Amino acid sequence: MTDAAIDRWLTRFDAVLQAGDVAGAVALFRPDAAWRDLLAFTWNIVTLEGPDRIAAMLGDCLARTTPVGWHRVGPSEGEDGAESAWVAFSTATAHGTGRLTLRDGLADVLFTAIADLTGHEEARGATRPRGIVHRASRTRETWSEARARRRARLGVEDQPQVLIIGGGQGGLALAARLKALDVPALVVERNPRAGDSWRNRYRSLVLHDPVWYDHLPYIPFPAHWPVFCPKDQMGDWLEAYALALDLDIWLSSTVASAVWQGDRWAVTVRREGGGTSILHPVELVFATGAYGPPRAIDWPGADSFAGTLIHSSAYQDGRAFSGKRALVVGAASSAHDVAVDLWEAGAEVTLIQRSSTCVVRSETLMEFGFDIYSEEAVARGIDVDRADLLSAATPFSRFTEGQRSLYQRIRAQDAEFYARLAASGMQLDFGEDESGLMMKALRTASGYYIDVGASELIATGQIGVIAGQGVARVVPEGLVLDDGQTVAADAVVACTGYQSMHRTLAGIVSEDAAERVGPCWGLGSGVRGDPGPWLGELRNMWKPTAVSNLWFHGGNLALSRFYSRHVALQLKARMVGLPVTVWGGPDQRGA
Amino acid sequence: MTDAAIDRWLTRFDAVLQAGDVAGAVALFRPDAAWRDLLAFTWNIVTLEGPDRIAAMLGDCLARTTPVGWHRVGPSEGEDGAESAWVAFSTATAHGTGRLTLRDGLADVLFTAIADLTGHEEARGATRPRGIVHRASRTRETWSEARARRRARLGVEDQPQVLIIGGGQGGLALAARLKALDVPALVVERNPRAGDSWRNRYRSLVLHDPVWYDHLPYIPFPAHWPVFCPKDQMGDWLEAYALALDLDIWLSSTVASAVWQGDRWAVTVRREGGGTSILHPVELVFATGAYGPPRAIDWPGADSFAGTLIHSSAYQDGRAFSGKRALVVGAASSAHDVAVDLWEAGAEVTLIQRSSTCVVRSETLMEFGFDIYSEEAVARGIDVDRADLLSAATPFSRFTEGQRSLYQRIRAQDAEFYARLAASGMQLDFGEDESGLMMKALRTASGYYIDVGASELIATGQIGVIAGQGVARVVPEGLVLDDGQTVAADAVVACTGYQSMHRTLAGIVSEDAAERVGPCWGLGSGVRGDPGPWLGELRNMWKPTAVSNLWFHGGNLALSRFYSRHVALQLKARMVGLPVTVWGGPDQRGA
Repeated sequence: MTDAAIDRWLTRFDAVLQAGDVAGAVALFRPDAAWRDLLAFTWNIVTLEGPDRIAAMLGDCLARTTPVGWHRVGPSEGEDGAESAWVAFSTATAHGTGRLTLRDGLADVLFTAIADLTGHEEARGATRPRGIVHRASRTRETWSEARARRRARLGVEDQPQVLIIGGGQGGLALAARLKALDVPALVVERNPRAGDSWRNRYRSLVLHDPVWYDHLPYIPFPAHWPVFCPKDQMGDWLEAYALALDLDIWLSSTVASAVWQGDRWAVTVRREGGGTSILHPVELVFATGAYGPPRAIDWPGADSFAGTLIHSSAYQDGRAFSGKRALVVGAASSAHDVAVDLWEAGAEVTLIQRSSTCVVRSETLMEFGFDIYSEEAVARGIDVDRADLLSAATPFSRFTEGQRSLYQRIRAQDAEFYARLAASGMQLDFGEDESGLMMKALRTASGYYIDVGASELIATGQIGVIAGQGVARVVPEGLVLDDGQTVAADAVVACTGYQSMHRTLAGIVSEDAAERVGPCWGLGSGVRGDPGPWLGELRNMWKPTAVSNLWFHGGNLALSRFYSRHVALQLKARMVGLPVTVWGGPDQRGA
Repeated sequence: MTDAAIDRWLTRFDAVLQAGDVAGAVALFRPDAAWRDLLAFTWNIVTLEGPDRIAAMLGDCLARTTPVGWHRVGPSEGEDGAESAWVAFSTATAHGTGRLTLRDGLADVLFTAIADLTGHEEARGATRPRGIVHRASRTRETWSEARARRRARLGVEDQPQVLIIGGGQGGLALAARLKALDVPALVVERNPRAGDSWRNRYRSLVLHDPVWYDHLPYIPFPAHWPVFCPKDQMGDWLEAYALALDLDIWLSSTVASAVWQGDRWAVTVRREGGGTSILHPVELVFATGAYGPPRAIDWPGADSFAGTLIHSSAYQDGRAFSGKRALVVGAASSAHDVAVDLWEAGAEVTLIQRSSTCVVRSETLMEFGFDIYSEEAVARGIDVDRADLLSAATPFSRFTEGQRSLYQRIRAQDAEFYARLAASGMQLDFGEDESGLMMKALRTASGYYIDVGASELIATGQIGVIAGQGVARVVPEGLVLDDGQTVAADAVVACTGYQSMHRTLAGIVSEDAAERVGPCWGLGSGVRGDPGPWLGELRNMWKPTAVSNLWFHGGNLALSRFYSRHVALQLKARMVGLPVTVWGGPDQRGA
């Protein structure tokens, strides 16, 4: 029954699209419908909300996309009066995948994405490379000889198509995807070993997301991998990943500058040992994390402090502060983790909470928030790739309401926890519209903490909290807060966050480029730190920006895994000269 | 219908076993039945052929095994008038898995194996470790600190339960299994990097088995891994594997001697930099490959040769012999590969074939021989673990006939290939009983070649063959063959094979221990190199030997993968003090 409804819709959609009938296509959508497209129609990452936007997009893109062959893949599923099914189709350039949700016979949500570029598919499974030709040859070049030659020429005779700045999960996942697509790429990583971006963080750090959410592409964690992976184990996994997949990385190397030269970049890389190379990649990807540079500590009198004053990005180990008074300024994830690390080291710790925080217990988030990324989901046949598509198939505009009801349940279940935490003086919130942690992560990537131990210390007073106070100035003996009180301290860790990723451009490309691109991340939700207008997608992430041939690829392990595919597809399409016309333009300013 | 037959048999089997009725159990088997047991009943690896052996085993083992709960897992499948199904059961100590094949309502083949030890199951999937406890703790030891402490103490304050000699696929797969079972193990590897055992082999080496057959436990190759993996890529994969799984390895270290001291070994290890450690593991595993030391070159006059004379184990690169005359003595895998490598380097190469060879084209073997290890099998739901169990479920005694008919088909299909090869003078065979390559591999691990390019060079005369001749003596200018002819040469590579693995014991434990254990490998098939009596299992491999607490774990990637589980289960059972009584005793001499 529901299969038939889906099939009927797809048949009609196919017919009107083939007829070039934009109005007919739009008529198949509900008035409040949303269509999320990853590259398939727009060569962009956009969500079209409402018939007008859908009509505008189809009017521009339909003729050049020529989508055909819409059909259902697998059975439909019904919930909440809606029927959903996976769909497949193809376009002038690609195999498409997607998901359709109908209500009353009309499309409520349509998700479309490029799965593979036609004629440029990843060689995998039955089409995997044969490896070595089984034939004697006097011109044989072995795998290791070919690699040695490739690496010797890379950046000298041969230029990488893509230069990736950063060898964390983002850079490595993208390099792996590009290699699988035969796109020559080079990762430049400032640390001496792949994975050091994890190893170098504070000693007690453990992933806050569970293993099912954290897989990298191609090589999933084994079944006995721990639920929450310690940072150094993650570091080793990334290093092993780069080795196993033979990724090209320049270690102990930093990108000093990048200048666009009309058809390629000129990128100055400072190499290990002091040498400098000028590279000429066609594409430049910033995979430098989810954030830009640390926010500067600009409190008046900061230079006068008699103790240690550092930003959280420089914090590694609290053991130097055993028995000392430590202040942690801020109350989001880093602040909580640093406070615990200091407490564990035997310091007397107080959090200076400047604004309220969304706290959620890790156990609770596991129970409610990771339902499709779990062992139970795997048992139901929802592997990580399927879960990623399910996540991506829901437009961000549809998240808020579901998250709000989720947080009503969470607050009810953990009412005692929140009461105890509030009694400590800590100020709690669940977002301006009560939509909770994930929406904060998407909108501002700040202001939240997944509780992995700090909250109990705060609730029991073992870590102090002074809430609602900013730092007015620094004096030799400590901090003077907004209300005039002086809090004495031997050490201050400023967990004051990071600038947007686009600020990294300013130091490497130019201030002008940073200005043109504008901030990364955030949806234009209109909350503080994420000003409107509403964009419906994360600003500048994984898609064309206002600066030609310059890309941002970042985020947690899950986002790095999923969107690395789409960044790689865009880079491959450009390399092989597919007719790529980006619809919707780059994100403009905001935030 | 077939499900019902299987279920009926299992119900009756369960009842008679629970009643202790050995005769009743035996009556459920055909007179020519075979029962292969991996540990579940016998704590040994044995195949029982016929009712008498089955009765003898059950008479000894039934009371202490107390198997219960026999039931079918999944649907039965019928072929050739037989019905087969996967089964499960449990014993006093373990969860059992198996496969039953009925003919006319009676068991034709029963396969039983331990899947997990009850109460000592691998923590995986839903029971995987949580990793780090999400709670602040002033006594926190981070993952990397715990590892640093473990490694600093290992071999000093703390002794490994298991010492594994060799860090190739055998040693690493076993170390990974042991780690997943919480059995402290240390790998001692003579090379400076894990994976060097592959890297150090001759330059053109590529795996002769396809990727689907070559996975390691826990971390399968990704879907774009090449079908035939070059040796250096395999080396990197092994190194990454050891890093990713945090295996404890002492590199650049060799085992000089091992002495049993009543409850533990005293193992002298020469460390990198010249130091020596004495280790005291309870268990000692030789994972030094599928073979023992190279056979010595004992031709008269060998010292007089004016050119280069080496064993194949020392051969790495033919480029020193460009333009020179090279003789390759032998005509099995190494000989063919070395001959190609020399030819590719521009040498003038002649094979001295002492006895006939079983040659099979790689393509043909892929088509006929790896049906359950293939992309098609994966698509049918037969993943590598399922394929391994399917392979293991067939007793070796049942292989021969199937292989013989397989080779009739192979010879028919490749008749032209064999005719051309024979016309070159090369002597071909398919085993004494025409059962082909795999039976040769199992019986003697010698005398065969999977053609990956040499045969075409031989058929076209680009590599010469002198067949049916041994080396009578060496003279300064070359080799004198049995028929008196002198063949001039600048270089001779003796591809004369290896001794049995047990000979490695002689140098490390004692000549007496090597004698007591006797040869490894071979089935007791009665062919040359594998004398009877018939054993039905590979001698001394992956199971208790005549020397207490001493084990052999070796073979290709597939065997290393599968049997590492069973070696690990045996070691774990002993470590935790399960009542392990080995039935059938260690293999005695032969070969």
